[in-house]
Amino acid sequence: MGQSIYHKRLTALRGRMLSVDPASCDAGWIIQPENRRYLSGFKAGDTHFTESSGSLLINQDRSLLVTDSRYALEAEREALDFEVRTLKQDLADEMPLWVRDMGTRTLGFEQDYLTWGLHRKLHDRLRAMSPGVHLVPLNGLVEGMREVKEPEEIQALEAAADLISDVLNEMVRRLKPGMTEKEAAWEIEGLTREAGAEGVSFPPIVASGPNSAFPHATPTDRRIGTNEPIIMDLGARLNGYCSDVTRTVFLGEPPAGFRTIYRTVRRAQLAAIEDVRPRVETTHLDARARNLIREAGFGDCFGHGLGHGVGLAVHERPRVGPRHPVELKKGTVFTIEPGIYVPGKGGVRLEEMVLIEGTGPRVLTRNDHFYDF
Amino acid sequence: MGQSIYHKRLTALRGRMLSVDPASCDAGWIIQPENRRYLSGFKAGDTHFTESSGSLLINQDRSLLVTDSRYALEAEREALDFEVRTLKQDLADEMPLWVRDMGTRTLGFEQDYLTWGLHRKLHDRLRAMSPGVHLVPLNGLVEGMREVKEPEEIQALEAAADLISDVLNEMVRRLKPGMTEKEAAWEIEGLTREAGAEGVSFPPIVASGPNSAFPHATPTDRRIGTNEPIIMDLGARLNGYCSDVTRTVFLGEPPAGFRTIYRTVRRAQLAAIEDVRPRVETTHLDARARNLIREAGFGDCFGHGLGHGVGLAVHERPRVGPRHPVELKKGTVFTIEPGIYVPGKGGVRLEEMVLIEGTGPRVLTRNDHFYDF
Repeated sequence: MGQSIYHKRLTALRGRMLSVDPASCDAGWIIQPENRRYLSGFKAGDTHFTESSGSLLINQDRSLLVTDSRYALEAEREALDFEVRTLKQDLADEMPLWVRDMGTRTLGFEQDYLTWGLHRKLHDRLRAMSPGVHLVPLNGLVEGMREVKEPEEIQALEAAADLISDVLNEMVRRLKPGMTEKEAAWEIEGLTREAGAEGVSFPPIVASGPNSAFPHATPTDRRIGTNEPIIMDLGARLNGYCSDVTRTVFLGEPPAGFRTIYRTVRRAQLAAIEDVRPRVETTHLDARARNLIREAGFGDCFGHGLGHGVGLAVHERPRVGPRHPVELKKGTVFTIEPGIYVPGKGGVRLEEMVLIEGTGPRVLTRNDHFYDF
Repeated sequence: MGQSIYHKRLTALRGRMLSVDPASCDAGWIIQPENRRYLSGFKAGDTHFTESSGSLLINQDRSLLVTDSRYALEAEREALDFEVRTLKQDLADEMPLWVRDMGTRTLGFEQDYLTWGLHRKLHDRLRAMSPGVHLVPLNGLVEGMREVKEPEEIQALEAAADLISDVLNEMVRRLKPGMTEKEAAWEIEGLTREAGAEGVSFPPIVASGPNSAFPHATPTDRRIGTNEPIIMDLGARLNGYCSDVTRTVFLGEPPAGFRTIYRTVRRAQLAAIEDVRPRVETTHLDARARNLIREAGFGDCFGHGLGHGVGLAVHERPRVGPRHPVELKKGTVFTIEPGIYVPGKGGVRLEEMVLIEGTGPRVLTRNDHFYDF
């Protein structure tokens, strides 16, 4: 994506900074890696939460990318709409000078990403300047922009979903009894890379037999067997955008009770997908699936939310669960992934990526490998 | 590692909570994933910084692991010294009840990991209780414990360093002109997994020619050529513990000036290693290497710190750089990785993992693939 997209996003952000609450902040400080990439094109991730590769300072007139010598050349090359500034000392020492240089009096920060410790340090230094600078929370200003995908982003998400659908198809073909979960997970990583992805969007889950009762199982040395549920949850990152899909498969026949469980999960998923449209509430979709699962007698076996937004991050806004109702918008891409988990026995989870179009849902992942139990 | 190690660490933590500053907190809240694993044995990582798989509440009498339904079974199985509590609602809603149940009046939190937003939410709810609970920063209580490795940890780090040394040796053999950086990086990942690692401890860096001037380069589609520097920076995770090693290699001859650059970096590294001993200051080691590089005329070409601690995290305390002097202790494991980067031309970085023994340094990575320029 070229310069124009970032320019457009910067303009939109500036409009929001003025319109949402004109008094709240005259500059925004963006440290969250996906927000940073979304606004600037700077691709570097943070190697660790406490090791930032850079941050953005944006007001109505200027846009700075503050980084250190490790990333300075990349920043210059990628973030064409930004003035790149390279830290010589600690961020907490130098940033106040740039903030002042921009004439900032009130600086917005990302409260769900900035640590208490760094906030405290900066707060004290910014207050000590003359005139003092106030820190105020940004309340998801950029996350809100990212929730509705632009046409280029939808294309990127389609491509990432296509790629992982191919990987899933190939992996279902390769799955054999006797293969360990770790071996299968590693094969998924290889197929994902060979298909041209930058990498997996999260470590693949392969959970077989009783392990499939753990919704976020880490692959083990357990050998996959016949006649047991095998959950595969996988995703790819392509041009920065993520995909996420889950299937439950059986080599042989499902064990006792698992036809009913599978059918229930699939019905819950289809019911939720059916209700996807602009302005529907997240909690409504969750309730549609959850009620069906509860009515089938598995109310205690579905402990997680129905789904989550997908974009530059594999988990992003909106959260689709039983609490925090949010009206969904046209252009939002999110997962629908109900599950039923029976401790000691196993589980079933089915996950699709869904785009909200003007008229209703469009499933981005390919409709393969569902059973007609 | 069995139950006893975690029990011992809990006891040590409790002692520190009493001795460091008896008035500061009567319970500690541990959310940082490596700290959590270190104290409890609970292995789950956080899928994303804002998506925690659990946290610990520890006072003089009790130890709770708070998680959600996705991780409850794993937590029960792995954290044998902890009472597992499963969240039904949001953490911010339920945690105050457990905090009160433990009789807490002052709760320590990890200020470099807890976000400002979550702190604010909890702060308000804890204060509203009767009696109110105060939040106070823990100031690296657990990180300080992790800085000095126990014998079992040193064994684990040796094993991780051994494994990555083997991978490096094999990769140097396989490196061929025409291979892309991405292909080489992917081969490193494969070799690391085939060697028995849980995975890489960070995405491998393969940076060739002018790309080697970027200290944290992301592998590209550039084809590796002859007579140019190729930096490979790689690490493995084995039984939770990380390794980290870097070599710069040439297929053919170094280009003009790069013999001198290489020799300078290697001399700087050896000088710093030579001075490793208990009680030496981090800044002294950095200065030893940095002065040699400056005297050779490359003072502007070494923008990052000399090294960092390695353990459950690939980057952890101590930071070894030009600022923030800290006395190093026996049992600390850290990297020594000077570099010289010439924009547009390329760079050289050499990295070893070093353990401080009673008498001096022990290099854990294997002493292979250094040139005698």
